[in-house]
Amino acid sequence: MRSEDEPIWNWTLRRIRKIWPLGDSGKLKNLVEPGLPKDDIDILRQKIRACLDGRGGEVSARARAAELGEAYLVLNPKGRRRFLELLATEYDVDNAAVEAAIEARENSDGPAELQEATHRLRRLLEPPRTRLLRQFNELQEGVKFLVDLRAELMPLTREDPSLKALDRDVFDLLSSWFDIGFLDLQQITWKTPAALLEKLIEYEAVHAIRSWDDLKNRLGDDRCCYAFFHPRMPDEPLIFVEVALVNGISTSIHELLDEKAPVVDPNKADTAIFYSISNCQKGLAGVSFGNFLIKRVVRDLSARRPNLKTFSTLSPAPGFMDWLQNGARGAGLGDRELQALDLIAPVAGSETDLAELISKNELPGAGGRSTLQETMLRLCARYLTKAKKGRQAIDRVAHFHLTNGARIEQINWAADLSDKGIRQSAGMMVNYLYKLPDIEKNHESYSASGGIATSSAVRKLL
Amino acid sequence: MRSEDEPIWNWTLRRIRKIWPLGDSGKLKNLVEPGLPKDDIDILRQKIRACLDGRGGEVSARARAAELGEAYLVLNPKGRRRFLELLATEYDVDNAAVEAAIEARENSDGPAELQEATHRLRRLLEPPRTRLLRQFNELQEGVKFLVDLRAELMPLTREDPSLKALDRDVFDLLSSWFDIGFLDLQQITWKTPAALLEKLIEYEAVHAIRSWDDLKNRLGDDRCCYAFFHPRMPDEPLIFVEVALVNGISTSIHELLDEKAPVVDPNKADTAIFYSISNCQKGLAGVSFGNFLIKRVVRDLSARRPNLKTFSTLSPAPGFMDWLQNGARGAGLGDRELQALDLIAPVAGSETDLAELISKNELPGAGGRSTLQETMLRLCARYLTKAKKGRQAIDRVAHFHLTNGARIEQINWAADLSDKGIRQSAGMMVNYLYKLPDIEKNHESYSASGGIATSSAVRKLL
Amino acid sequence: MRSEDEPIWNWTLRRIRKIWPLGDSGKLKNLVEPGLPKDDIDILRQKIRACLDGRGGEVSARARAAELGEAYLVLNPKGRRRFLELLATEYDVDNAAVEAAIEARENSDGPAELQEATHRLRRLLEPPRTRLLRQFNELQEGVKFLVDLRAELMPLTREDPSLKALDRDVFDLLSSWFDIGFLDLQQITWKTPAALLEKLIEYEAVHAIRSWDDLKNRLGDDRCCYAFFHPRMPDEPLIFVEVALVNGISTSIHELLDEKAPVVDPNKADTAIFYSISNCQKGLAGVSFGNFLIKRVVRDLSARRPNLKTFSTLSPAPGFMDWLQNGARGAGLGDRELQALDLIAPVAGSETDLAELISKNELPGAGGRSTLQETMLRLCARYLTKAKKGRQAIDRVAHFHLTNGARIEQINWAADLSDKGIRQSAGMMVNYLYKLPDIEKNHESYSASGGIATSSAVRKLL
Amino acid sequence: MRSEDEPIWNWTLRRIRKIWPLGDSGKLKNLVEPGLPKDDIDILRQKIRACLDGRGGEVSARARAAELGEAYLVLNPKGRRRFLELLATEYDVDNAAVEAAIEARENSDGPAELQEATHRLRRLLEPPRTRLLRQFNELQEGVKFLVDLRAELMPLTREDPSLKALDRDVFDLLSSWFDIGFLDLQQITWKTPAALLEKLIEYEAVHAIRSWDDLKNRLGDDRCCYAFFHPRMPDEPLIFVEVALVNGISTSIHELLDEKAPVVDPNKADTAIFYSISNCQKGLAGVSFGNFLIKRVVRDLSARRPNLKTFSTLSPAPGFMDWLQNGARGAGLGDRELQALDLIAPVAGSETDLAELISKNELPGAGGRSTLQETMLRLCARYLTKAKKGRQAIDRVAHFHLTNGARIEQINWAADLSDKGIRQSAGMMVNYLYKLPDIEKNHESYSASGGIATSSAVRKLL
Repeated sequence: MRSEDEPIWNWTLRRIRKIWPLGDSGKLKNLVEPGLPKDDIDILRQKIRACLDGRGGEVSARARAAELGEAYLVLNPKGRRRFLELLATEYDVDNAAVEAAIEARENSDGPAELQEATHRLRRLLEPPRTRLLRQFNELQEGVKFLVDLRAELMPLTREDPSLKALDRDVFDLLSSWFDIGFLDLQQITWKTPAALLEKLIEYEAVHAIRSWDDLKNRLGDDRCCYAFFHPRMPDEPLIFVEVALVNGISTSIHELLDEKAPVVDPNKADTAIFYSISNCQKGLAGVSFGNFLIKRVVRDLSARRPNLKTFSTLSPAPGFMDWLQNGARGAGLGDRELQALDLIAPVAGSETDLAELISKNELPGAGGRSTLQETMLRLCARYLTKAKKGRQAIDRVAHFHLTNGARIEQINWAADLSDKGIRQSAGMMVNYLYKLPDIEKNHESYSASGGIATSSAVRKLL
Repeated sequence: MRSEDEPIWNWTLRRIRKIWPLGDSGKLKNLVEPGLPKDDIDILRQKIRACLDGRGGEVSARARAAELGEAYLVLNPKGRRRFLELLATEYDVDNAAVEAAIEARENSDGPAELQEATHRLRRLLEPPRTRLLRQFNELQEGVKFLVDLRAELMPLTREDPSLKALDRDVFDLLSSWFDIGFLDLQQITWKTPAALLEKLIEYEAVHAIRSWDDLKNRLGDDRCCYAFFHPRMPDEPLIFVEVALVNGISTSIHELLDEKAPVVDPNKADTAIFYSISNCQKGLAGVSFGNFLIKRVVRDLSARRPNLKTFSTLSPAPGFMDWLQNGARGAGLGDRELQALDLIAPVAGSETDLAELISKNELPGAGGRSTLQETMLRLCARYLTKAKKGRQAIDRVAHFHLTNGARIEQINWAADLSDKGIRQSAGMMVNYLYKLPDIEKNHESYSASGGIATSSAVRKLL
Repeated sequence: MRSEDEPIWNWTLRRIRKIWPLGDSGKLKNLVEPGLPKDDIDILRQKIRACLDGRGGEVSARARAAELGEAYLVLNPKGRRRFLELLATEYDVDNAAVEAAIEARENSDGPAELQEATHRLRRLLEPPRTRLLRQFNELQEGVKFLVDLRAELMPLTREDPSLKALDRDVFDLLSSWFDIGFLDLQQITWKTPAALLEKLIEYEAVHAIRSWDDLKNRLGDDRCCYAFFHPRMPDEPLIFVEVALVNGISTSIHELLDEKAPVVDPNKADTAIFYSISNCQKGLAGVSFGNFLIKRVVRDLSARRPNLKTFSTLSPAPGFMDWLQNGARGAGLGDRELQALDLIAPVAGSETDLAELISKNELPGAGGRSTLQETMLRLCARYLTKAKKGRQAIDRVAHFHLTNGARIEQINWAADLSDKGIRQSAGMMVNYLYKLPDIEKNHESYSASGGIATSSAVRKLL
Repeated sequence: MRSEDEPIWNWTLRRIRKIWPLGDSGKLKNLVEPGLPKDDIDILRQKIRACLDGRGGEVSARARAAELGEAYLVLNPKGRRRFLELLATEYDVDNAAVEAAIEARENSDGPAELQEATHRLRRLLEPPRTRLLRQFNELQEGVKFLVDLRAELMPLTREDPSLKALDRDVFDLLSSWFDIGFLDLQQITWKTPAALLEKLIEYEAVHAIRSWDDLKNRLGDDRCCYAFFHPRMPDEPLIFVEVALVNGISTSIHELLDEKAPVVDPNKADTAIFYSISNCQKGLAGVSFGNFLIKRVVRDLSARRPNLKTFSTLSPAPGFMDWLQNGARGAGLGDRELQALDLIAPVAGSETDLAELISKNELPGAGGRSTLQETMLRLCARYLTKAKKGRQAIDRVAHFHLTNGARIEQINWAADLSDKGIRQSAGMMVNYLYKLPDIEKNHESYSASGGIATSSAVRKLL
């Protein structure tokens, strides 16, 4: 074992011990070295074969698959990559068998035979490794294992396209396992176990949680936090959303994150603001939960708090500054907007300069006729509604909410003056409004033709 | 609505109300009549199309699928059959598209293109209705819904082979949803909710539970009962096993079911007898849990009660009498066995006569040289080990335990003198021994070559 | 050990094993024989002394008290009686010390000294054995132990008045432990563990539960069952009440107990009928829960089901027939009533004869001018409102509900035709109405002056 | 309402809202002003009288008591004091009735009459207010209410002795409610709700918890934390102890609190170190849990981790420095010890100077013949074993563990170099060893004659 592998090795051993506290990890060391040399690969092949053949019965096969999973965890990154490559290259679809099945299907006689032959062909098109992937479920934390395996696999597919098909297989399996019908919607409060709350701190992707006090404020009486969980990963949120109960639509993130702000009476609040939504599991990229999460939370909150009349987000426009610098010029802007571009261009790379500009709210070339605020709001409205890739809004947050059937309600100036907020969105934030009766219509219009629902206020900015 | 449909209609409405206590079932009556006339079928087609297209977004599509599921529940048997036939005939694989994909695959250039084309072909081979089947998961008890749907579908496939492919799709989906890794093993005791215990009474398939007192006896201190559950069907056992903790291998079911028998000290018992194992969900036929259940229970009991040294079943031989009357003569029996056949033949159809014969334990033609018991045990041993279909034992209970890697340990005379026990097994019962170190070897031998592991006592009978 | 003790001995040993599965019951046999002979009494004295002195610290003293409790459980009835007599006679208040404290108090100087002396006197008036009774709480089921000890003690006080003071001490302690503020109100449903439901069957004191089907009917969708529990006796209900949700006030117990009666929609029912209330623990006689139970259930049901407008009982008049035969003649009845007495007198001892009379509903001497029903209802109204002991109604059920502030609403003919119903109440049942705004006033009037609230219908009968 | 009352008023209102979220606090303002003026006191008297008389039945009386409790919570400190004084002065024992009962008792005839009269006297000696105190249990958090009431009452008794008797009544009631047999021992881990963990941070009284990271370290795999809870105060620990699983007896608190120290394998650790034990509820002062807590934890850990052989504390000697400065000179010390006293005296008031001295570990006057460490350990051993008040060790920590039957095992130099550790204990810490077989003997010896168990190492220091 090479010393450079040391830390990974220790880390994985610790992890194994955590997962199989009673396991005898000793024998694993005989099976694999962290780098997975050739000899070990041959042992692996035998074990995989035994799993795929179901040797000794399915119970034994699964036990063997669990051992393979443990072996994987003991490997260092190089060894894991070799393990994955083995799965990708040697246990793919058997093309010769597929050809034969295609021929048999073509020669089939009558609908019953055709159906049978079609079914046989379908079976053959499912790569054998899929069986092993399912068998990993035998691991004590088998679902989490496969999610994490994919998180490690995904970046490798960029360098090594041969891994793509494997990634697709894992993705298909996870999509089926994480069918929305299997997930639990849970509310998270200050009474939730600390071990879980700690993960919110880790996973929060929009407005970083700075401390336990910050977290406690986000779980106060005038807040709600909801997450989806899989029954086999009860300690791991899949996605969570943070909601503030307020009066009127919030226009700034700072008042929501202010730990000293007075607490709103939740029985009198008329508006629920979804101000942060974070995916937690990299390995579930592409499996979509957000749409369901928002709508179930809307439904749950509506039932529990009839005083809530309005459901809106307070969201960043994370691609705005990038578009401003790189894409806007070709977008048919007016004079004032082009002036603004010139103004922003030299300072766009520096949050400090940009922040100063925003704080002054001055549009130099405008001769006082209009403010920076005015111009930027107009630019942002144009960005959100016109900047597209095909029919889709290029802003990923906008695309997400528009696909969900929300409407662009309001754009707020100086709404997020954090470094990230200024760098990405020039400090602006957007309210997307979820109005249940319009959601289907908005979705259809956006999906079919890229039509974007907007409030009259936003239309005025255009 | 014809009056003959009345009871079903009422029954389903009651059921709907149970599942969607808040739902407004009124509108359903506008959508469908219980018999599903032509007009309604067209409405159904539109709704199904909207589900498959994901119209209005996946959240809306699933809501619509749930409505379709509710509609199905309101239908009478004829209407349900039409619903299923619709799914079977109109939403199957698109063969034209498949042909095109096959051609495209053949013309693909290089491994990357081939892989891509193969994947596209695989997608096309999955029938569109599968998407709808998944979406039914949106129903509040969606998993149970699909299980019950299949229970209704299965008998129809016998008369109407066009439904077979649909059944296969439902089966594939259920197999994936009921992957053993997702199931919970739970112990069932007298402290379990009555609503669940009631289901044991309903589902017990081997030795009928006669009363709550009988049930309580089977959950006493010297008993264990385990069941698998799916997290989305927490009130419905999938399969359960009843175990008695005893000293020495039990040779008669009557002592186990005797409510007045003294309680064995579970901390001193040396043997666990698996005396009943019942599948609970008809719709899960073909999804196999029993193998896993027995082995997990063995593992759990071993860990919790180190005093247990032996794990054995006490099982019927349900096909024995049938074989004796219909198959045995061609099986190369000796004289005495043939005599026994002659003796049994005239009384085999009557439990009373057979019971009398057994109680006398006399083999008339034998001239006192041997007893009925002796002969029948020999015949049963031969039946279990020699009567085969291909490599498989024809006795389905034997086949199950042999596949699991158990060994035929002992055949017991006058072990189940209930009507059913006499009619099926001539009152005999079999102990299959689960010896963990031998299980893989036994399984492999049985699977590969039909080799059957037996004890020396059983070999002696042969 | 005498053989006549055998069964008790075995029973208690089994019970001990259940309570202290890990205990070594061996040494107990050295300490005590089931009959508790003299030598053992001396050992007991030493152990009790060590407990009362807190020898070895309170942890040790409690451990020793637990051993004493175990010893008690091993004893046969004679031995237990000796144990209780020992506690009653040797560990009572020290009268000499009390005299001295009284004198010291009389000689105390100034209010501070007086207070101190008064407090010291109070301490001395608490018998030493109370400390031991508290220490029994160390037993694993210590609370239940003391409740059961009192259940055994109470009947003995009748023969042996010296035990009365001990009973009072146990009662005082239990009253404090079972303060209503410590109890949990729980709803009992068909989903409740069978082991608990079984106890309802055992404890039901008003209308015996005939079978599990009967029980299930009483826990149906249109029923509610509530019980109080103590946190340290979670498996033992203290008192429970059965409620039916109906439309209009129920006038007969038979429709409520009819397992085949159609289920009422609980969301539309306007009336809650309390048709059975049973105390479960003999050892808690005198500690009163019923008043609290009814009012909490009314409060809970009102909150959960706003459709409920009326809360009433359907109760027996268990002392009516006894009064009719023994007390009524001196109660200033009219002619017709006296005729009725003459009529009833000869058949009152026989349920069959009485039942026949009721079924005919004929008042022989009345010459057709009035029915048996008419006369008996009048008699019953008079019984409930006029038959008193001091200010209290002599009917114990009436006294209970009147003390709670209920009003006599209605008397129902042929409402309980079970043997017991006929024998005690001549088949009649009474509705006591709980109208929240009147409860305090009714209670005060009844407590202060024996005033009984009645409906106009009942007043008419008078 | 005076503005100086503002914060309290707000605080209590917030608290009320928390406790009775559905209550209408409006009417309370009519009843009482926060300062409780005379008029309100008369209203109070009426309400208290109604509670004590049980007017309207006990359910009504308790509801009224709950209102009184709410009223108390609305009061400002001055108002609360008046409320308490009212209870103390007007609802005490009725001395005239007591005199009469004493006389009646003296005139009683025969043992039965004497017993009855004695019992009546006992009843009269219980102050009427006790009934109200019990009735407060009706409050939703009634147990916590009484605990907090006593926490407020206790400091007032110092200035106003008339409140002492009231405090004694509250204490008696709490002692009975918090009988050890009713408490739950729970383990606290990183999976415990954050809302509860936050309270550990608040209540930790020995080694302050600096941060959530510090807390997490104290709940790591090689730690255990246990607390007692009352079933009616499930969110409030009563007392908790922190335990480290280590190898060999720990000699310094710093290694235990070091968040970066490697984690010990809990399955191999041989020693459990109790390094912090904190009472949480001021209102329960005098009700003793610590003794039970330590022994139950020892028992629980012994059962769950048979690898643990030694159970010891790592405790401060909080009175040591005070004794050194004020009491030691009269304690018959040797020359070197007196030298040390001279040396310490000038720096004893300054943690910084003392810390420096300790870090140098030099005993100036000793001419190198001995170190500061040597001398101080000797002084500390003398302090712990000889410095007494009557038979009791004056060090309160020593007294606690010696009463529990522990032995002084070891005194550790430079074991707690925090400011507090240096100021109170000159940086030393003590191991008290809990050896189960010796505990009773040690306790008896200490209780009876002040005998202190010590190890040979400690005896050597003497």
